[in-house]
Amino acid sequence: MSHDAPAGRRTGGEGGNVLTAAAVAAAVHGELRGDPAATVSRVAPLDRAGPGDLTFLASAKYAGLLEARADGVGVLLVTSELADRAGIAAARVVVANPHEAMLSLLGALYPGPRHVAGVHPTAVIGRGARLGEDVAIGPYVVIGEGAAVGAGTRLEAHVVVGAGTVVGERCHLFPGVTLYPGTVLGDRVRVHAGARLGSDGFGYVFRNGIHDKIPHVGRCVVEDDVEIGANTTIDRGSIDDTRIGAGTKIDNLVQVGHNVRIGRLCLLMAQVGVAGSVRVEDGCILAGQAGISGHLTIGKGARVAAQGGVFGDIPAGETWSGYPARPHREALRAQAAMFRLPALMRGLERLLGGKGT
Amino acid sequence: MSHDAPAGRRTGGEGGNVLTAAAVAAAVHGELRGDPAATVSRVAPLDRAGPGDLTFLASAKYAGLLEARADGVGVLLVTSELADRAGIAAARVVVANPHEAMLSLLGALYPGPRHVAGVHPTAVIGRGARLGEDVAIGPYVVIGEGAAVGAGTRLEAHVVVGAGTVVGERCHLFPGVTLYPGTVLGDRVRVHAGARLGSDGFGYVFRNGIHDKIPHVGRCVVEDDVEIGANTTIDRGSIDDTRIGAGTKIDNLVQVGHNVRIGRLCLLMAQVGVAGSVRVEDGCILAGQAGISGHLTIGKGARVAAQGGVFGDIPAGETWSGYPARPHREALRAQAAMFRLPALMRGLERLLGGKGT
Amino acid sequence: MSHDAPAGRRTGGEGGNVLTAAAVAAAVHGELRGDPAATVSRVAPLDRAGPGDLTFLASAKYAGLLEARADGVGVLLVTSELADRAGIAAARVVVANPHEAMLSLLGALYPGPRHVAGVHPTAVIGRGARLGEDVAIGPYVVIGEGAAVGAGTRLEAHVVVGAGTVVGERCHLFPGVTLYPGTVLGDRVRVHAGARLGSDGFGYVFRNGIHDKIPHVGRCVVEDDVEIGANTTIDRGSIDDTRIGAGTKIDNLVQVGHNVRIGRLCLLMAQVGVAGSVRVEDGCILAGQAGISGHLTIGKGARVAAQGGVFGDIPAGETWSGYPARPHREALRAQAAMFRLPALMRGLERLLGGKGT
Repeated sequence: MSHDAPAGRRTGGEGGNVLTAAAVAAAVHGELRGDPAATVSRVAPLDRAGPGDLTFLASAKYAGLLEARADGVGVLLVTSELADRAGIAAARVVVANPHEAMLSLLGALYPGPRHVAGVHPTAVIGRGARLGEDVAIGPYVVIGEGAAVGAGTRLEAHVVVGAGTVVGERCHLFPGVTLYPGTVLGDRVRVHAGARLGSDGFGYVFRNGIHDKIPHVGRCVVEDDVEIGANTTIDRGSIDDTRIGAGTKIDNLVQVGHNVRIGRLCLLMAQVGVAGSVRVEDGCILAGQAGISGHLTIGKGARVAAQGGVFGDIPAGETWSGYPARPHREALRAQAAMFRLPALMRGLERLLGGKGT
Repeated sequence: MSHDAPAGRRTGGEGGNVLTAAAVAAAVHGELRGDPAATVSRVAPLDRAGPGDLTFLASAKYAGLLEARADGVGVLLVTSELADRAGIAAARVVVANPHEAMLSLLGALYPGPRHVAGVHPTAVIGRGARLGEDVAIGPYVVIGEGAAVGAGTRLEAHVVVGAGTVVGERCHLFPGVTLYPGTVLGDRVRVHAGARLGSDGFGYVFRNGIHDKIPHVGRCVVEDDVEIGANTTIDRGSIDDTRIGAGTKIDNLVQVGHNVRIGRLCLLMAQVGVAGSVRVEDGCILAGQAGISGHLTIGKGARVAAQGGVFGDIPAGETWSGYPARPHREALRAQAAMFRLPALMRGLERLLGGKGT
Repeated sequence: MSHDAPAGRRTGGEGGNVLTAAAVAAAVHGELRGDPAATVSRVAPLDRAGPGDLTFLASAKYAGLLEARADGVGVLLVTSELADRAGIAAARVVVANPHEAMLSLLGALYPGPRHVAGVHPTAVIGRGARLGEDVAIGPYVVIGEGAAVGAGTRLEAHVVVGAGTVVGERCHLFPGVTLYPGTVLGDRVRVHAGARLGSDGFGYVFRNGIHDKIPHVGRCVVEDDVEIGANTTIDRGSIDDTRIGAGTKIDNLVQVGHNVRIGRLCLLMAQVGVAGSVRVEDGCILAGQAGISGHLTIGKGARVAAQGGVFGDIPAGETWSGYPARPHREALRAQAAMFRLPALMRGLERLLGGKGT
């Protein structure tokens, strides 16, 4: 059989919907130049766009790519400064921010998979479990006793919903997600493939020569409109709950420890680690691979830079970075000094030879 | 349907068991004050405890929370200093360490899910596989040819036990765990959802213009009483085995490379990475996101702080931190000096202007 | 039932094939001393090898281990300097590099599991999906509508192949792998257990008081001969594709963000994180836990040391390390200076007392 993995085929496949240049211009409040009846059915970056593709030009340095498309492109979103650059396009739509305009059109071009309600015959549904209207339950899903799944929610293949777990309405759980018993999801929560919510926290007491396990009886509560990335892990609480606030977005391979409270509208980027009992207040941003030690508070709207290692509370609104993390400007100055130090070191040691410690 | 995700409901759900105040006092060797017949059926933190809840007060700064519970609480574990603080409780039990007493009661209140032996009809059992007495095999489990599963072991939904794999007695594998062929688990091993044991190590030789894969024929051996966190990965050995010592506990999203030997009673916290052929001796603690480079030895009882980057052997009993990791006090001094450096830098450069390198 | 988890049994189980000492010598172009008809059926490290085992001795410091094997070993691969050291071996084969010779024989001794073509009756195959000749589809595999799986490819238990996905020939997907719709794999791609390819990238625009999700309509394209580790996550592109170049090898728990381009023949070690829109050119090596910030370019053949935190482009061929990453020698000098600084600090502050800032 044939396939086209290494080939330079255009991205995104077919979009499902077709938009005219006139519809594009109306949707983005842009100025239409060219054929209002020209159509596009998908998006592509400028270096690979063709007729029928929606693309954009926002910087003069990429203008040559437009000229290079011998067949031309479908509809070009473009700034007024670049609107007259050479190159074939069935239509141009002049807007202030072509990239943002492009993103705003994706939903119209790519409506996403249709929600097909139904319960696959292979799904195993525990006693007393309740399924809301129009749920879509995929193959080999396992739903525990007494669990509740809200209306319009989709559980893809191999999802496991533990006993007594509550999943809200219009959620989407991708393949292989595990919700341990004692997990609660709000409405419109998206959980990507392989994420594990509600696993036991890492809690032991060393006694009688062993690490004796502390039972974990708290819950893992995820509020409305949260999105959780692939293979991310969020532990349940020991006595109290672990809680993820409404509208917060969590990337792939993130670890959230037991009893952690994440506020509303936070962003946790990939591979971030949040140790037990940390409180992250509303609107915080933790960049990739950052780590927060246990029992700390990250104040409202604070930010931690990538790989930051946080060992103390961060006041609201501040940006910290480095290891150990400090206010970003202080960290930058210390790093700059450190990299200038070797050049000074020889003279320094000579100077201090008779006066040092 | 309704659900209660964002609500402030009490934690932990029903506990399953009911304890009287007299039983609580007896179990923790505490002094009972109040109604010995008062009952509790679950635990809650003080700010959300109500009648019927077991809770604790260990610090004067939280005493106001007790007073604020208008309905009072069920049984309060409390120190002698705080035993007379205002607030309603059906009974108080005076102990030296209320938090520890609370943890010690969790097992009695929350007995955990009952072990229900049986093999789900959808489980696929390979030829020659042997199942011990009273195993509990969940839906869609796949057990390879010639594998052995010990008595009383529980395999939850979608667990895959590779061909020839050996799983000991009274183990608990949570949903979606994969044991590659050549994995061996001792007794009472707990493996959380999505952990992958025995995958090929990352070993290639660059020859003939490609990264040529080195076959991995060693095993992944996990000794008794080990617990392994969600989505953690432990590679098999190339020629020798990878081995995790008895009683060691490993958190979520940890990576253990090929041929690694982890000793007994170690703690590896979340997102730790241990590169190939490292030897971690007994009783070591590797804190979150720490990384150990290949072929090193971490001596008995040594500790590595969070995010530590270890590029050399660590002697027994020492605590190292930082990047590159050094003995903790040395690392702290160097970091402190680094952050004081910018303030000194201008004067320093003036001083060295005519004398530097 | 019995099992042998904590026992010191030899590694690797039976090898399946038997080789004579003469065949070993011929395969590695070595000089045979001893019985040409002696046979081996598996490999073992020298400290646990016995009769019938192939083992090696490459360093004088391990020669005592050979002497200690009272029953002797089967065939010993050994350097000419060490060929006469005491100890029993049915045969010795003298080669320049015994360890490399050992690795080169693994394929002959351990042929790997036989490919058994067939589709398990529990596999769920979507409408219009095409399966090539001799595919091996395991239990509870789910293949989406219109997907294509190439000849000779093996999908182990619980693999999910999304709608419209293309998998090449002779690929091997281990248990629990998820390919989101829009993923394309070339030929001979190996994907280890629990890896997730093609999940949505972490892209939001903050507007109207929420983090508004940017649709992801690009693909995740993996070229020929790539190997991907357990529980690794690779996001699809937003508009453009995410692409992994031919012959690149990716370890466990790695995160690759949306729109990233990884070149050919790269090595990404465990827990590496590559943020969105990064370009990693051919032949790069990113060591464990390294992180690359968004939109950067890592030049051809460049290397990043373990835990390196990269915040700027790296020129071709360079090795960078540290946080923030700098050319390796510069980083080493700065670190060395930092650790010498505390000893100088007191004298320094005295000196600058009247002259500093």
